[in-house]
Amino acid sequence: MSYVNPGSSYTRDSRYITTRITADGRDGFPVEPGRYRLVVSRACPWASRAVIVRRLLGLESALPMAVAGPTHDERSWTFDLDPDGRDPVLGIERLQEAYLARDPGYDRGVTVPAIVDVPTGKVVTNDFARITIDMSLEWKAHHREGAPDLYPPALRREIDAVNETIYKDVNNGVYRAGFAGSQEAYATAYTSLFARLDQLSERLSTSRYLVGDAITEADIRLFTTLVRFDAVYHGHFKCNRQKLSEMPILWAYARDLFQTPGFGDTVDFDHIKRHYYLVHQDINPSGVVPVGPDLSGWLDAHDRASLGGRPFGTGTPPGPVAPEEAVPQL
Amino acid sequence: MSYVNPGSSYTRDSRYITTRITADGRDGFPVEPGRYRLVVSRACPWASRAVIVRRLLGLESALPMAVAGPTHDERSWTFDLDPDGRDPVLGIERLQEAYLARDPGYDRGVTVPAIVDVPTGKVVTNDFARITIDMSLEWKAHHREGAPDLYPPALRREIDAVNETIYKDVNNGVYRAGFAGSQEAYATAYTSLFARLDQLSERLSTSRYLVGDAITEADIRLFTTLVRFDAVYHGHFKCNRQKLSEMPILWAYARDLFQTPGFGDTVDFDHIKRHYYLVHQDINPSGVVPVGPDLSGWLDAHDRASLGGRPFGTGTPPGPVAPEEAVPQL
Repeated sequence: MSYVNPGSSYTRDSRYITTRITADGRDGFPVEPGRYRLVVSRACPWASRAVIVRRLLGLESALPMAVAGPTHDERSWTFDLDPDGRDPVLGIERLQEAYLARDPGYDRGVTVPAIVDVPTGKVVTNDFARITIDMSLEWKAHHREGAPDLYPPALRREIDAVNETIYKDVNNGVYRAGFAGSQEAYATAYTSLFARLDQLSERLSTSRYLVGDAITEADIRLFTTLVRFDAVYHGHFKCNRQKLSEMPILWAYARDLFQTPGFGDTVDFDHIKRHYYLVHQDINPSGVVPVGPDLSGWLDAHDRASLGGRPFGTGTPPGPVAPEEAVPQL
Repeated sequence: MSYVNPGSSYTRDSRYITTRITADGRDGFPVEPGRYRLVVSRACPWASRAVIVRRLLGLESALPMAVAGPTHDERSWTFDLDPDGRDPVLGIERLQEAYLARDPGYDRGVTVPAIVDVPTGKVVTNDFARITIDMSLEWKAHHREGAPDLYPPALRREIDAVNETIYKDVNNGVYRAGFAGSQEAYATAYTSLFARLDQLSERLSTSRYLVGDAITEADIRLFTTLVRFDAVYHGHFKCNRQKLSEMPILWAYARDLFQTPGFGDTVDFDHIKRHYYLVHQDINPSGVVPVGPDLSGWLDAHDRASLGGRPFGTGTPPGPVAPEEAVPQL
């Protein structure tokens, strides 16, 4: 499978299935505990947003989760971590099957996160940006006691604006650097990425979180890129002006989140590294996965609490991770 | 050209042309100012040793130098930096021509450094480890006033022992990591590399230089690998436990040398980066050269002088670089 098109910039295929699961069921898919299955990979930054939001909001039992293996072939994500290589609920080996159940002619990306309607086995949506917002707004009746408000009405306009620039320059920017098919396309992405990181660093020098004084959707979206930065984007995607660990404010910000329940306890660095280095064969033909970086620094003190704010606003942290969803800890 | 052999460890072809240029001319090639031409690439760590030693000893006019371009094809180094793409003294376009002049059936590596006998146009030697030692010992009559003793008799045994471990685990170790054809071969090289760097860091925590209290051949050999570490070995060769800039003692040691006349003033980071990222197409098929890392830290204070010792022993630093040999400065 080819990720780099020689001579070209990288353009993400953003034709997602935009059906929504809502409280009122207006697209035919009402919120209903246990009816749907959130399919993720812990390697994928877009899916990891959903994993974190689900846990912060306490949606684990209302919206069960299937975890695909970190590597995949040209037919995309598989359930090779499960006994017999099949998701025990959906009964399928490949996520592609649920996309084809939805549309036998489906020819776009077989991406995670995807939410599958369990009774029919069909993908309802893979619109990752919408999925986490809908978890906050549409699934509200099933949030845990003390769930934070990750998308408060008064801050939505600012969160949306921050998210837009983070998406363009950071979340997708690292891919535009790594999948660039020319030196010029790469250099453009690199310049925008680090200019934006410098700006975010400035913003976070006086504020513990990106918007307001508690964790919001914006922090989650930045975190899932930052947590992958030194492990994959710095080397594999050539985002190498500095490591995250050499950008003191962003590094402390990322550590603060990592050490907050719901963030680091969802991160599987082994899945992350194996995915990028094994799947992108045109960037890393040898298939060798780096042993580094040394990850122990993620647990170092961050001293961000002195900036004020409360991680969960008037809410509370989520409890421990359920044993069946635990990841290896540093 | 293929550098990685799937399934295999990397083994350097160490069958060099071992003819020596000596004061007594016993191999038929007596030391003689102006007779020979040292062919180097500023990209290459092995050649860069010779560039540094030549400058520290003041051999510039006795042993003139030809600089090949940073990139090459399967026929190896070319003089594409020169007008008309030919070395003005040897009159050849490719270093390969001087190897074939020596032996029309030559089928081993066309490597730098190489010393060419100008009258015949034939390579005399490409035995890089011997070349720098012979510059110290055999070319002594042509050293500048105040040239340091880089290989003092009383320290030779210790220098040789240090050099041997540095060669195996560090100088060549980074290549064994980068050109590994299997995960196991890579991991073995990575482990030895960082274990050795840890040991060298410990050694350098109380001593400004590796052996004795002045710069020796051992420091030059370690320096040429360290100066390439963050620019290429960390990402391109996956030597990524930490960057050099995250290993405080080694980083200060390397900065100290970089800021010493004869070291940093011979380093061309642009040549270094373009060589590795463009030549090793099987590691970096896209041919994109990273913009990073930020190199400004090389000029930061190092505070190593407090450990005692004198860089040039009883000698003096070399003067300014001749304008025709100047490299871009940071």
